[in-house]
Amino acid sequence: MKFTINRSRFIQELQTVQRAISSKTTIPILTGVKIVLTSESLNLTGSNADISIETFLAVDDEKAQMMVESPGEIVLQARFFSEIIRRLPEDTFTLEVLDNYQVAITSGAAEFTVNGLDADNYPHLPVVEEQNQLKLPVHMLTKLISETVFAVSAHESRPILTGVHFTLDNGQLLAVATDSHRLSQRIVPIENATADFNIVIPGKALVELSRSLPDEEAEIEVSIMDNQVLFKTPTMYFYSRLLEGNYPDTNRLIPNSFNTEINFSGPALLAAIERASLLSHEGRNNIVRLAINADSVVLFGNSPEIGKVEEELVYEEVTGDPLEISFNPDYMKAALRAFGDMSIKIRFISPIRPFTLEPTEGEASFIQLITPVRTN
Amino acid sequence: MKFTINRSRFIQELQTVQRAISSKTTIPILTGVKIVLTSESLNLTGSNADISIETFLAVDDEKAQMMVESPGEIVLQARFFSEIIRRLPEDTFTLEVLDNYQVAITSGAAEFTVNGLDADNYPHLPVVEEQNQLKLPVHMLTKLISETVFAVSAHESRPILTGVHFTLDNGQLLAVATDSHRLSQRIVPIENATADFNIVIPGKALVELSRSLPDEEAEIEVSIMDNQVLFKTPTMYFYSRLLEGNYPDTNRLIPNSFNTEINFSGPALLAAIERASLLSHEGRNNIVRLAINADSVVLFGNSPEIGKVEEELVYEEVTGDPLEISFNPDYMKAALRAFGDMSIKIRFISPIRPFTLEPTEGEASFIQLITPVRTN
Repeated sequence: MKFTINRSRFIQELQTVQRAISSKTTIPILTGVKIVLTSESLNLTGSNADISIETFLAVDDEKAQMMVESPGEIVLQARFFSEIIRRLPEDTFTLEVLDNYQVAITSGAAEFTVNGLDADNYPHLPVVEEQNQLKLPVHMLTKLISETVFAVSAHESRPILTGVHFTLDNGQLLAVATDSHRLSQRIVPIENATADFNIVIPGKALVELSRSLPDEEAEIEVSIMDNQVLFKTPTMYFYSRLLEGNYPDTNRLIPNSFNTEINFSGPALLAAIERASLLSHEGRNNIVRLAINADSVVLFGNSPEIGKVEEELVYEEVTGDPLEISFNPDYMKAALRAFGDMSIKIRFISPIRPFTLEPTEGEASFIQLITPVRTN
Repeated sequence: MKFTINRSRFIQELQTVQRAISSKTTIPILTGVKIVLTSESLNLTGSNADISIETFLAVDDEKAQMMVESPGEIVLQARFFSEIIRRLPEDTFTLEVLDNYQVAITSGAAEFTVNGLDADNYPHLPVVEEQNQLKLPVHMLTKLISETVFAVSAHESRPILTGVHFTLDNGQLLAVATDSHRLSQRIVPIENATADFNIVIPGKALVELSRSLPDEEAEIEVSIMDNQVLFKTPTMYFYSRLLEGNYPDTNRLIPNSFNTEINFSGPALLAAIERASLLSHEGRNNIVRLAINADSVVLFGNSPEIGKVEEELVYEEVTGDPLEISFNPDYMKAALRAFGDMSIKIRFISPIRPFTLEPTEGEASFIQLITPVRTN
């Protein structure tokens, strides 16, 4: 294999597959990036136990300025290789596989010779069966991920909760995540799906997927296999394993009758919660207290050592019974960040029952749930 | 004490004194910022065992929008206080000392009540004797610091080497730092100094001083006391303790006859050293090798596991004997960074004797020394 390529274009590709490469793996060859050059494209692959990413760069890509002398393949230690490429002196570099898996990397007067590995020993990626597919816009998928993934569990005690549950049923794609203290659920309509499905994708894989996707308006194709899911764009394949086990029935958790309802501007409430949590974070229990009355809504935070904070909140509308309720401000902050600039409606049953947050407009397609903290 | 002030102007002041405040101190009151309001100015103080910073904000400062109701003083836990101020909702806030050193901080609807400490218990800063002073431009001081401080020792085994040695003698201010492997020395002419001196200022203090100084063209006044130095600007006092002990005689270390001399563009050599050090960092000995001949200069780096790099360097001029020499690339990188964009001259005696680096023009006022590594 021997080719010359534009350095910054190559770095882009390398960055994408590096998201899947960990230096902590127990399989040494997986610390490497697999480089395959055919007459049509330069393909890079990175993988760990959970996700694999493959990129395709056409040899006639204009920015890549590629000159192919001979096809071939090699595996190079990803971290070093990337640091070397970044520091090369010229805009382009030449990579050539020599004998014994040695690789020469030259750019201007700088000449690196590094040890590579036989690409035949690199694990094979799952074979994709072209079935059980759906297509959706990239921006819809990234939004769906950002609105739910923060609510997955960070603990491995119930592994199934570390993923986001996706179900396709009746032309509706439902994504839900919960760590058993809070929950976030989003529903979007889907056209042209070939078959219903019910899968749990690890939260970490979804975060990396989001970061790897292009910003442009484009479609992504999702193929679901037995224990894998594949996200396909014209220039990238992103594989993730699926979590095994039954996801809890979250639908029954969402209440539908309430006693108190209040509407806020999301960003204003978030700023107040952030202030109150400055002190609650120092207390033994990280909680803030909200007191809702017909004519005032007040938020309290305190820490015995540092002091306390009290803030009369600006709200849009309040209806129903007065209420005092305490909760973990960190769950509230994460929930409000997911709503962005929206105006939101919070509905309560009682101080000890989970409460819901929804956009004031377009409710039911996006709902969050937070469990309060009992204080007596 | 009660006053209202512009939030972002106050944050500026607080940031400056926070450089001196550590949360790890064994003296609890030093985790606090001392706030003193007189009829003329608002003064903040932060301090640790090594440095103290005091800032002065005139009550009629335009951007500060100050409204003073009553003077007074208090000490507030610095980290929390600063986080609270940052998150307040309005452009201004009001601070009022209540009974029992409680302090109310209000801004819009947000009302914090935090526990303060009696300012009488805050340690007194050293009394400044108005003698042994010199004045120099701020930009000259910050340049002097950045050109030397990187070469101080990071190890406490010889504490005196953790500081920069400043001597004023014959109208010349000489600053020198060495960790015994490399040395950096800068000389600047000084007018109007009242008396010669010979002091060692801790490197860490100089780094914080540099960061605290304004960017504008201004003069700074330096007052030297028995075991303290004070840097004065119209809006800030910066105190540092001095290191005790005799600084080694570095003058005799600098050689003055050489056998090989070569001129480089500083940035080009730096880029090549950075490439070579990618591999040397992985080897057991972190060294790179330079081979100088009449018609070529080549830099080598290698790591048995990863590979090797070889680069023919572009140089401006070479004279004298051929030479092969090995050195730690990290010392070379730090030295070259201190020279910035300059063209530099490197002069060698032999593979086992320290070599010098100087700007091609204006030599003698700025010189660096690096000890090579013997490879056989």
